[in-house]
Amino acid sequence: MNDTSLDPADWDAFRALVHRAVDDAVDFLATIRERPAWRPVPAAVRDALREPLPRTGEPLEASYARFRELILPYATGNLHPRFFGWVHGGGTPAGALAEFLAGVMNANVGGREHAAVYVERAVVAWFGELFGFPPASSGLLTTGTSMGNLLAICAARDAALGAQARERGLAGAPLVAYAARGAHSSIAKALRIAGLGTASLRAVAVDERFAIDLAALRASIAADRAAGARPFLVVATAGTVDTGAFDPLEALADLCAAEGLWLHVDGAFGALAILSPRHAHLVAGIARADSLAFDAHKWLQAPYAVGCVLFRDERAHRAAFAESAYYLVPADRGTAAGAPWYAEYGLELSRDFRALRLWLTLRHYGIGRFGEAIARCCELAAALGAQVAAADDLELLAPVSLNVVCFRVRRPGLDEGALDRLNAAVAVAVQEAGEAVPSTTRVEGRLALRVCLINHRTVAEDLEVLLAAVRTAAGLPRLAEEVG
Amino acid sequence: MNDTSLDPADWDAFRALVHRAVDDAVDFLATIRERPAWRPVPAAVRDALREPLPRTGEPLEASYARFRELILPYATGNLHPRFFGWVHGGGTPAGALAEFLAGVMNANVGGREHAAVYVERAVVAWFGELFGFPPASSGLLTTGTSMGNLLAICAARDAALGAQARERGLAGAPLVAYAARGAHSSIAKALRIAGLGTASLRAVAVDERFAIDLAALRASIAADRAAGARPFLVVATAGTVDTGAFDPLEALADLCAAEGLWLHVDGAFGALAILSPRHAHLVAGIARADSLAFDAHKWLQAPYAVGCVLFRDERAHRAAFAESAYYLVPADRGTAAGAPWYAEYGLELSRDFRALRLWLTLRHYGIGRFGEAIARCCELAAALGAQVAAADDLELLAPVSLNVVCFRVRRPGLDEGALDRLNAAVAVAVQEAGEAVPSTTRVEGRLALRVCLINHRTVAEDLEVLLAAVRTAAGLPRLAEEVG
Repeated sequence: MNDTSLDPADWDAFRALVHRAVDDAVDFLATIRERPAWRPVPAAVRDALREPLPRTGEPLEASYARFRELILPYATGNLHPRFFGWVHGGGTPAGALAEFLAGVMNANVGGREHAAVYVERAVVAWFGELFGFPPASSGLLTTGTSMGNLLAICAARDAALGAQARERGLAGAPLVAYAARGAHSSIAKALRIAGLGTASLRAVAVDERFAIDLAALRASIAADRAAGARPFLVVATAGTVDTGAFDPLEALADLCAAEGLWLHVDGAFGALAILSPRHAHLVAGIARADSLAFDAHKWLQAPYAVGCVLFRDERAHRAAFAESAYYLVPADRGTAAGAPWYAEYGLELSRDFRALRLWLTLRHYGIGRFGEAIARCCELAAALGAQVAAADDLELLAPVSLNVVCFRVRRPGLDEGALDRLNAAVAVAVQEAGEAVPSTTRVEGRLALRVCLINHRTVAEDLEVLLAAVRTAAGLPRLAEEVG
Repeated sequence: MNDTSLDPADWDAFRALVHRAVDDAVDFLATIRERPAWRPVPAAVRDALREPLPRTGEPLEASYARFRELILPYATGNLHPRFFGWVHGGGTPAGALAEFLAGVMNANVGGREHAAVYVERAVVAWFGELFGFPPASSGLLTTGTSMGNLLAICAARDAALGAQARERGLAGAPLVAYAARGAHSSIAKALRIAGLGTASLRAVAVDERFAIDLAALRASIAADRAAGARPFLVVATAGTVDTGAFDPLEALADLCAAEGLWLHVDGAFGALAILSPRHAHLVAGIARADSLAFDAHKWLQAPYAVGCVLFRDERAHRAAFAESAYYLVPADRGTAAGAPWYAEYGLELSRDFRALRLWLTLRHYGIGRFGEAIARCCELAAALGAQVAAADDLELLAPVSLNVVCFRVRRPGLDEGALDRLNAAVAVAVQEAGEAVPSTTRVEGRLALRVCLINHRTVAEDLEVLLAAVRTAAGLPRLAEEVG
């Protein structure tokens, strides 16, 4: 007998509870639009979640009831059609089913011989096919583009260091990387992690559409070479987080080929523009990158957290991450077969079955359905941008390249500081009203309401509600006080 | 109207399918023991999973049927009570429910103001309480200990570099780290990622129980200082992967305090020995570490992939990972409240709701139930070790410190090379028979069958089945041929 098993003593009771949870979940998902886009977490809920470590247990029904009371009502908000903040995918019901199935199987996809490994290979191959990477390229699913960018930057660093990389590391090598001024913060952070520091990143000037200035890039590389530094990497952005701008990938691929530099593309959400016929031209040349990182939990609507990184040269990829430990040697046969193990391709040795949510949803929807949703988001963004540009009381702060609209409320007589305070207060007021969730950023120093169209549930009427909420908030007497 | 929504056209049909999946899942979980511990993936299944990118979709029922046919039957094996390979947790049915709920909510726990953030804070505080870390310490949930080790090593590196860390990085600083010869490969790998290279790691000699030799460590530090290098970090292991050995944490904490070094504890599974009354002494002193990384998907039986890293000094933790980007500035109110954001504590900007599986299962089972299962695993390991030591045809290759038993089949007249080949073939034969899954490693150069007791479902009879399968395999005529 086994008195330490954690399986249910009563399988029927467990089955009944899970069925109840499914009914609750389907009701929750089918009524997203009827709830506020976001609501604050009450202090009482925050307090209730601050408990000591449970020493003894409680019935699963009790834990589930607590979840329904304290957690489920106070969601991030990203499932709602009027959540426009940051870049948050909306998920799908089919994705939630996949998460359940993955939880049941509880596979460890760090390596070894089992079906989950082949599912991940299939999904990575699908992405390679989508972006035109050669069949011999490699890749793996990550928890997101921050991790994909880090893996790519480490591989590029080690390729530049060559034979010394594994044992001696940087050893003072003056490596230098380049990216446009609007590149994502995860690039500088990855260079810090890699031991290079932020000073190794040249923030290159951008043009009027916020794309990298090629002449400035060339000049910077030449100046660094002249000063004895070692340029090794250009990071191109396909869809900047602030404004959705694209660097010119074909031109950068030419430049990197001529200069002998690694070209990495940070395509967190913008790489998926390849699926929209009217926007695919923005990523022309992406197939020539040495590496490409992008998210699946954004425009592919996969449950958090999953992204992908692709590498043109499997050897460079593996060289940066493979270790040789006796307990990790793949075998020809048995459970330890299945080489190459994913542990040799990244930083995780134990890895969850994140591929299943993509395998299931890409099969069910087909990539075409995602393309339609992406194209629709871009159309909505263009329409919103035009509406803002035409309004007297609003001001568009950046051209709409893709799916991001940055604008602000304008008001005669307010200086820049007061306008910043007004718009920050408008964002909070719209969020707290539960009407919609824009986030904020700064565009050329000015505080912007930032509206990112990414959710497949969003329709044109949602943008009407957003603009009405912004105008209502801007007219609130208490906001006038805050602005001072 | 919205023709790009990815929500089901027919919610009732979706609901019915998920209910069906729940019944299948409960049947699957309730009958784990009746299936083989592992089975190979047939070539036909591998081929079927090698399809081009789906351009158009199919009914969700069809995708789910494909999952049942191609994926579910060919699991990793770790749910089975006779899976003893590597260090694989067995998961729990309650954990699978939590994964479904997390998939439904689809929270992004990189930051912002919503309940999932407070759930993660609660879980991290529980772990801080368990290990006696001070209330002001910080931490976050990672995808596992490899990532936790990397975060700790980067923070230790940056603390050693001080003011130059962020901008200038290593800049040739001759930092040196120390760990016992049996330390996990993720330590050397993290030092590579951090730009230091494997030569920055001193592999310190071990004693007869495979624990770090303190005199050798002291001598190595002194020699490095004399040679102009900068010692900065000692990595202690609580439960080595090969043999379950423990470094002496109190003594290492004293040494690190005296030498001004950061003490990181890699406690992937062994840190949880704190929950077993007879083994808690092995981790005495763990509360004095500067950082501690461990897994929850191993001995806490959480679904893959989740671990935790704790830091004594929140400022050192945050300094290593915080970035300042306009679009990521926490606000006092609204959706952008909730500071500090987890994105400032690690490498991921988008983060899944990995805390829910721990919150739900720790509430339901209570930490005490996990302690009982852990103690039971150690008892089973001790009993197996004694049985092997007493057998004429088997040889114990390392003392049983915790839950890992390394042994081999012996056979008079075979040299070491032939014994290695024999035991490797035995492992594969036992796996392919579906009877049990031991993995292999090398102990002092000799190939070992490695049996790691970690699954809460395992009972004493399972070890009888294992030994019988090993002896059957060792007697197979075809193995004699392979050994040559």
